[in-house]
Amino acid sequence: MIESVVDILVSNGTVLTLNAAGDIIPNAAVAIKGDRIAAVGPMKDFAVCRASRTIDAQGGIILPGLVNTHTHAAMTCFRGLADDLPLMTWLNDHIFPAETRLTPEMVYAGTLLACAEMILSGTTCFCDMYLFEAQAARAAKEAKIRAVVGEVLYDFPSPGYGPLEKGFEYTEALMDAHQNDPLITIAVEPHSTYLCAPALLQKAADLALRRHAPLVIHLSETQSELETIQQRYGKSPVAHLADLGVLSPGLVACHCVVLSDADIELIRRHDVKVSHNPESNMKLASGIAPVPGLMRKGICVGLGTDGCASNNNLDMFLEMDTAAKLHKVAALDPTVMSAPAALRMATIDGARCLGLDKKIGSLEPGKLADLIIIDTAKPHLTPMYDPISHLVYAVNGADVQTVLINGRIVMENRRLLTLDVDALLKTMRDIARTIAGT
Amino acid sequence: MIESVVDILVSNGTVLTLNAAGDIIPNAAVAIKGDRIAAVGPMKDFAVCRASRTIDAQGGIILPGLVNTHTHAAMTCFRGLADDLPLMTWLNDHIFPAETRLTPEMVYAGTLLACAEMILSGTTCFCDMYLFEAQAARAAKEAKIRAVVGEVLYDFPSPGYGPLEKGFEYTEALMDAHQNDPLITIAVEPHSTYLCAPALLQKAADLALRRHAPLVIHLSETQSELETIQQRYGKSPVAHLADLGVLSPGLVACHCVVLSDADIELIRRHDVKVSHNPESNMKLASGIAPVPGLMRKGICVGLGTDGCASNNNLDMFLEMDTAAKLHKVAALDPTVMSAPAALRMATIDGARCLGLDKKIGSLEPGKLADLIIIDTAKPHLTPMYDPISHLVYAVNGADVQTVLINGRIVMENRRLLTLDVDALLKTMRDIARTIAGT
Repeated sequence: MIESVVDILVSNGTVLTLNAAGDIIPNAAVAIKGDRIAAVGPMKDFAVCRASRTIDAQGGIILPGLVNTHTHAAMTCFRGLADDLPLMTWLNDHIFPAETRLTPEMVYAGTLLACAEMILSGTTCFCDMYLFEAQAARAAKEAKIRAVVGEVLYDFPSPGYGPLEKGFEYTEALMDAHQNDPLITIAVEPHSTYLCAPALLQKAADLALRRHAPLVIHLSETQSELETIQQRYGKSPVAHLADLGVLSPGLVACHCVVLSDADIELIRRHDVKVSHNPESNMKLASGIAPVPGLMRKGICVGLGTDGCASNNNLDMFLEMDTAAKLHKVAALDPTVMSAPAALRMATIDGARCLGLDKKIGSLEPGKLADLIIIDTAKPHLTPMYDPISHLVYAVNGADVQTVLINGRIVMENRRLLTLDVDALLKTMRDIARTIAGT
Repeated sequence: MIESVVDILVSNGTVLTLNAAGDIIPNAAVAIKGDRIAAVGPMKDFAVCRASRTIDAQGGIILPGLVNTHTHAAMTCFRGLADDLPLMTWLNDHIFPAETRLTPEMVYAGTLLACAEMILSGTTCFCDMYLFEAQAARAAKEAKIRAVVGEVLYDFPSPGYGPLEKGFEYTEALMDAHQNDPLITIAVEPHSTYLCAPALLQKAADLALRRHAPLVIHLSETQSELETIQQRYGKSPVAHLADLGVLSPGLVACHCVVLSDADIELIRRHDVKVSHNPESNMKLASGIAPVPGLMRKGICVGLGTDGCASNNNLDMFLEMDTAAKLHKVAALDPTVMSAPAALRMATIDGARCLGLDKKIGSLEPGKLADLIIIDTAKPHLTPMYDPISHLVYAVNGADVQTVLINGRIVMENRRLLTLDVDALLKTMRDIARTIAGT
């Protein structure tokens, strides 16, 4: 029996804790004090608990907020601008030209819109890589969503910060500005082995180590990347990073589609974290990351949507569904990726990728209160034999009823409380006219 | 200028006609008289048109209702009952035992629930194969959704009709009962080459021909099916049907995952229609149907969800997204399946599969008024550079605002007008307790 006074009691749902034991508690509640989870347990434990505010989950599912381990949030500006094209045509003729016209205000508006979409679809934490990331941090703080953000670094001058040395200064200034920020973590984010010289990669790794920051990179996304790096350095992108001393437990390697057994062993040995982005890899025809094999080796894999230009949404429920199904058909074996494994990728393992698993990713006392409620009183979620099956194979983002981040209600009964959605839509339509040149 | 009095004017949207020219009309309307489309055109054409009822699409997308070419609607009863298992374990230990306990009332309730889910996610016509299909027809009529239904036929006695000869009688009685039904078409539906002897297959084909009914079958779904038929008859399932004289333009062959070049040529030569079910094929680890190759040969391919036990939802928007992405990654070529091709599969080509393309599948004067409105005033659908890209890669079923079938509004502003959803959910929860044995 929990005798106490709490701020918020989220009651009357099936609680998926995502704790180490994978406990699922039917007819249960989560109590929140300030920004933290005070207690998790069956309803009867809360009989004498007094809460300033009670949120009735009405028999739905209560679970940790989803963690999107790789996106480029402001690319909402380019959603649907160009599709179904070969990668280089898509990048060189559409995305790169559009990006040269980006302004800080477009990144701010695009990230705000992405935050709205993510909160509305149950994501409570995202890892971002883009330009003008001070604006991304500003947008995330305004939306009151948790974020890991980092300015993308590469060898050539950036529209964001100018010459490369300014990029490192920009990154450190972001770190200084967001020290002890309850929501924002600053990462060091070199783009990739093919756009970053060895010196850049090593300097980035040193900075991440010195400032205890995550290091985020695109790695082994395509066969053509592998060929480029093989030609340039005589080794795979993963081996190249290993030889540069850049592989570490703090490295988040996004995509990891084209991996040899030797690459996988390097990733395992250095405890590198992998962000899996199946929908983007499918849409860009990059290939299928060997995720079941990575998991069998004990490598930590989180899930990500990538940006809206290659997905074209930020719905992590659909990403789980795709991940679970894609690996089954790739292996011609329905057992290689279970629904529980997909759910862990999108929650606790995603948090672990970002170095945040002590704080978020599961519903356990003492953790920060990032949680979501799924409304299951709908035709496509009835009956419910197994809540995890539903979350992975039947739920979509529109079934998320209410979202709490850091103990604060940011979306309730589908209404965003931190942002003015109509104003966001209007701003983005104006931006799109500029981008389309009409 | 259209000077006339109509019943319903669906106004103020981007109209995707899905006509032969693929016309997209911005700022347009669709006028409906009785059960038919009277006119389609830009808003200015309707300046003097008087309508008893105007539905404002508010700048959203107006398109033909989606056509689900293969499902087992009543399997909503088993949604999430068992997942992530090898096919034979799943079937023999979970689905088949559960199906032996099916009753007509369960099929009725399960189909009603499926109809609710389908209408809410923009499907206006579905092709069903299951047991107790008189109940499926009854449910579809009650939901006021268009359906092609047929009792599944196989060699062994059926819980539905008993011995096989009664199955043919049952099918003909369904045909008699639904002659000239505005919504229901009865099909002849032998299960598969492995559960149906040659005599059954030929008798089914003869009946379909005699009654001008569609003939629906599972065909070449898995490698193990191919091996079974090879062993039994010394040829592939497709060649087996060809030799039996069963291949015809009226045949809807569902799945078609495992096809040789010779099989594809037989399908092409006989103008057999193919129902593509990518999510089910992925979830059951059956394989990837060679759909881009079929399309290059000019074979008509429709889209289907299959039943809820192997998907686990009936959302055709998600199915389009998966189809478009899956074939890109399978071919490592982003051009093999475009968004427009995926949309045609889910609309006009699906209608053609079912022999209904003269009546539905596009928005053209004289066709039956089956249409849906997408609400695009949402973060994940903003901005909109290309409505087809959005429909395939960003929309999900919950974005469907309003649905008309046969000229009748069946769902408006997300509210189902033909069914009592709360009652359906309650009934299904009771059925699920019986199925789970609790």
